[in-house]
Amino acid sequence: MTTSPVVLVGGGPGAWDLITVRGMRALQAAEVILADHLGPIGELEKLCDPSGKEVIDVSKLPYKRQTSQEKINELLISNARAGKKVVRLKGGDPYVFGRGFEELQALSEAGIACEVIPGVTSAISVPGVAGVPITQRGMVHAFTVVSGHLPPGHPRSLVDWRALAQSGATISVIMGVKNAGPIAQALSEGGLAPSTPAAIIQEGTMAGQRVFRTTLDQLGPTVEAERIAPPAVFVIGEVAGLSA
Amino acid sequence: MTTSPVVLVGGGPGAWDLITVRGMRALQAAEVILADHLGPIGELEKLCDPSGKEVIDVSKLPYKRQTSQEKINELLISNARAGKKVVRLKGGDPYVFGRGFEELQALSEAGIACEVIPGVTSAISVPGVAGVPITQRGMVHAFTVVSGHLPPGHPRSLVDWRALAQSGATISVIMGVKNAGPIAQALSEGGLAPSTPAAIIQEGTMAGQRVFRTTLDQLGPTVEAERIAPPAVFVIGEVAGLSA
Repeated sequence: MTTSPVVLVGGGPGAWDLITVRGMRALQAAEVILADHLGPIGELEKLCDPSGKEVIDVSKLPYKRQTSQEKINELLISNARAGKKVVRLKGGDPYVFGRGFEELQALSEAGIACEVIPGVTSAISVPGVAGVPITQRGMVHAFTVVSGHLPPGHPRSLVDWRALAQSGATISVIMGVKNAGPIAQALSEGGLAPSTPAAIIQEGTMAGQRVFRTTLDQLGPTVEAERIAPPAVFVIGEVAGLSA
Repeated sequence: MTTSPVVLVGGGPGAWDLITVRGMRALQAAEVILADHLGPIGELEKLCDPSGKEVIDVSKLPYKRQTSQEKINELLISNARAGKKVVRLKGGDPYVFGRGFEELQALSEAGIACEVIPGVTSAISVPGVAGVPITQRGMVHAFTVVSGHLPPGHPRSLVDWRALAQSGATISVIMGVKNAGPIAQALSEGGLAPSTPAAIIQEGTMAGQRVFRTTLDQLGPTVEAERIAPPAVFVIGEVAGLSA
């Protein structure tokens, strides 16, 4: 029995055909697929023939059934050691808040090789498809992608929202739905004008896509009034006010 | 004669199979392809049969032959008005310093519809494939992608390098080869420790890929000593010191 290398695949923002060609081929060759609920997993049959493949749902939905990271690592290792061709399918890009490197490290410690196939990150592509360019010449030459998972000021937060507010970069927040108000407030207190354009995109690139254009001071109220639910991306900066 | 919508396609970081499935299909359907020198153009035949397609090189190589943006817009508009299925193939993602939105605006003003297909940006994928994760849980919850095209302090620069240095975010610089020294100096002056890990990846994801691990204070000297040439990505931050 030979241990197979594990392939970590970025599945893109949600639409099945926004995975890379390399990622699709890895799925076609896979014998075992460990998948999150994000990415193209809902339309897997458009990318490969799932019959004969074992598809394991390891989704970690907030507040719902969770598979621990330890359990995911165990499944990756045991299947690879059984000689199976294993794909770990993630939403977006494996290294954009995806814990991809932790999985690669766990595999490495177990002596198992790991190939990484990048994916289109929702932080850029979701605004792009919705008509919001993350950069624009003469307007902004940088953008910051930030996890809104922890509210500003949280003891485990590693984000300096004040510095981000002052950087002049477009700010793209993912996983920030439940902290929209505090995030907007922290950016305001950091110096961003309350009138700074903001866009909210829920379920970007997918059938249920909803797009709202607002301003920084109305970000929290809009999320509440429109009952925005994850997955959603916030874009804050002048580019959110552009239209064709 | 019906005017066709133009499709703006992100071609990814360079390897032909890091374009999206949607992007590949657009190329297969295209009658005219206007391409940059970046992205998968060098291996186009692996994505579609180019015979019967008109492929126009509109690359804007620094210091070399240039096609003006006005000329590119003209070609997009005239071909679309001639009823041709036009794909504008760009490296990376169309909206990451790609002037994609300017092209969309020019088309819009001419009354021509434009579809945007996102791409994998080199700013994230090139480090990822080279073993540098742009984020890591417990270490960094944000990253900034910045154009190094203009040196710090340039009158047209829109980048606050001091705020970036203080943000705690991983910094990924693209198009920064000729300004590596001044960029490192600006980040140091902004408060980033000279010992901050840095990685340099030239021709990432492609056959000629070269990877150098260094520190912030050695970024400029390493670029010079190793004769780094574009395209290259710099990653500055603790993640650049991680290994599996």
